[in-house]
Amino acid sequence: MRIAVIPGDGIGQEVISAALRVLARIGDVVDGGIRCDVFDWGADKWLAESVGLPEGSLEVLRHEYDAILLGAFGDPRIPDMAHGRDILLGLRRGLDLCVNYRPVPLQGGSLDVYRENTQGLYVGVGGTVCVGNTAQVAIDECVYTRDTVERFMQYCLADLRRRGRARVTLVHKSNAVPNTGGLWQDVFRRELGRLPGLEGTEEYVDAFCYHLIRDPTRYEGVVTSNLFGDIVSDIGAALMGGLGLAASASINPETGFGLFEPVHGSAPDIAGTGAANPYGALMCVVLLLRHFGLETVANTLHSSLSEAVGTRAATPDVGGTGTTSAFTDEVLCRLNAK
Amino acid sequence: MRIAVIPGDGIGQEVISAALRVLARIGDVVDGGIRCDVFDWGADKWLAESVGLPEGSLEVLRHEYDAILLGAFGDPRIPDMAHGRDILLGLRRGLDLCVNYRPVPLQGGSLDVYRENTQGLYVGVGGTVCVGNTAQVAIDECVYTRDTVERFMQYCLADLRRRGRARVTLVHKSNAVPNTGGLWQDVFRRELGRLPGLEGTEEYVDAFCYHLIRDPTRYEGVVTSNLFGDIVSDIGAALMGGLGLAASASINPETGFGLFEPVHGSAPDIAGTGAANPYGALMCVVLLLRHFGLETVANTLHSSLSEAVGTRAATPDVGGTGTTSAFTDEVLCRLNAK
Ligand SMILES: CC(C)[C@H](C(=O)O)[C@@H](O)C(=O)O
Ligand SMILES: CC(C)[C@H](C(=O)O)[C@@H](O)C(=O)O
Repeated sequence: MRIAVIPGDGIGQEVISAALRVLARIGDVVDGGIRCDVFDWGADKWLAESVGLPEGSLEVLRHEYDAILLGAFGDPRIPDMAHGRDILLGLRRGLDLCVNYRPVPLQGGSLDVYRENTQGLYVGVGGTVCVGNTAQVAIDECVYTRDTVERFMQYCLADLRRRGRARVTLVHKSNAVPNTGGLWQDVFRRELGRLPGLEGTEEYVDAFCYHLIRDPTRYEGVVTSNLFGDIVSDIGAALMGGLGLAASASINPETGFGLFEPVHGSAPDIAGTGAANPYGALMCVVLLLRHFGLETVANTLHSSLSEAVGTRAATPDVGGTGTTSAFTDEVLCRLNAK
Repeated sequence: MRIAVIPGDGIGQEVISAALRVLARIGDVVDGGIRCDVFDWGADKWLAESVGLPEGSLEVLRHEYDAILLGAFGDPRIPDMAHGRDILLGLRRGLDLCVNYRPVPLQGGSLDVYRENTQGLYVGVGGTVCVGNTAQVAIDECVYTRDTVERFMQYCLADLRRRGRARVTLVHKSNAVPNTGGLWQDVFRRELGRLPGLEGTEEYVDAFCYHLIRDPTRYEGVVTSNLFGDIVSDIGAALMGGLGLAASASINPETGFGLFEPVHGSAPDIAGTGAANPYGALMCVVLLLRHFGLETVANTLHSSLSEAVGTRAATPDVGGTGTTSAFTDEVLCRLNAK
């Protein structure tokens, strides 16, 4: 397995160091080993060379790697996160990673959230006329192609079935946004019709967020568009006990190429203090191993993580007194013992 | 004061009956009295006559009334809520009610949410090409004019100052939706610059929802666009203890015309059982009285409501054993005693 590692900025560097320690250990027991190459994309490179996603890198990633492991982007010197946007949106679109998967473990159940990751309001189509005067009109277009919604939906519904889920909810807003909303409803209903055994419901995004907060266990699987998914998955992170625990996988449904990334940001305020929680990054390693069929070692790492987060070695954000490296030691220690 | 009353469907009828009882009582003590005329718009009329918002009604409302008091729309016979959309969006756009205000009372503080109510993704601009085949492309446009954002922002910031607020947060997504997002940021910064004493911060909608759930008291006032406001205000309702308690006011910033509406739906499942909580509708009466400068009677009603909701006469959704009318009796009884 060949992994392109992009630590990024701030605590991204620190949690990825933790993940690399764990990957090195796992590489020893996995057939063929795991090759990790580190790429220095991020704020420093952007400021020094005005380069976000370097030219030609999509080709390199596509041909020489199976997956990307990414830390986080964000730097106080670049308040609008132009570099992060350039790299992240460039990778999602360029590698056609249209499925963003985020598991949300909850007390009394768990939720699988799938966000479409390449189109919708993120297509960058639109513009502004009469800049600065009262007549100014600004337009951003929400665009979806049936092809992308279908590929997304087929992957997600099949994946939910693989995970043994019985129910899936489409989160939409077709009462206000009828064209793209209607396309999503149409594809959802058709694809569900082809997959007996999965029961579908549809909810408006506002009502869905309301119910998700009041009783998250009423849902099993959620499929939704790019912007709603952005919001819903952060709500999921809030409900599961914090961004420090959340992991995500962005998948190309045809090639299986995956980008694995913790959900938290670069947290410049705690960078360098040792307070960064590597749980999300290590959960990314779990998702990565599972995605490539290494179910057994993924499960072993997952249970080591779950145990370690209950000890004092956990970082302060989740109630422990440990540091990034102390928590990682605890995980490795438990991993060795299994 | 002349109020056009639109009970609508389901429990809308029931909670508006409660509000009319309270308004009748208050009308006795208010200079000039309160005239309430009931309009039968809703599901039955839609099904019988194919009429949502009847022709000419915008004119009537504009010239003969100061405000609308609305119950709720929604009927199982009209699954896509076409009638509710026709009436609600027709009133918002037709009467230019661009400011939607929702107070969110919380433990340890309270939050004022302002949602722009007429543009953004709700403008109904867009379409679909190649319907049904793989090449299908669906487009919904998010459109904002500077004029509307300015009028909205000026009203909201002034209103926040009137309420003694020190801080306001712009909720946006300019990193993904740059044209409208940028317009909102520009207007927000300019208008704040003219209003010393109000401190502004800007947050991405995903991060904002995350923090709102984890610690709602970190915000005082929120200004945001139509779709984000739709989601954020339902999250607010979830945090304040349920949709049954939430009220909203939609205001035309120039004329002061207002539409007052509880946030809950028509709840066909409990219609007719007496379980409907009239608290939201009665809070609408509080907002209405306050909007028209009747501060003293508004406060008296508000404290009667707050007291009554702590008694057994409260409806089951908020922990009581009462009914719609028992709770209203309790409120009236306390109102009389003041
Ligand atoms: C940085 C931003 C464009 C991005 C998004 O909205 O997709 C982020 O919020 C995320 O979820 O990865
Ligand atoms: C019915 C629907 C179009 C409406 C909206 O999204 O504005 C509703 O959710 C609301 O908030 O009043």
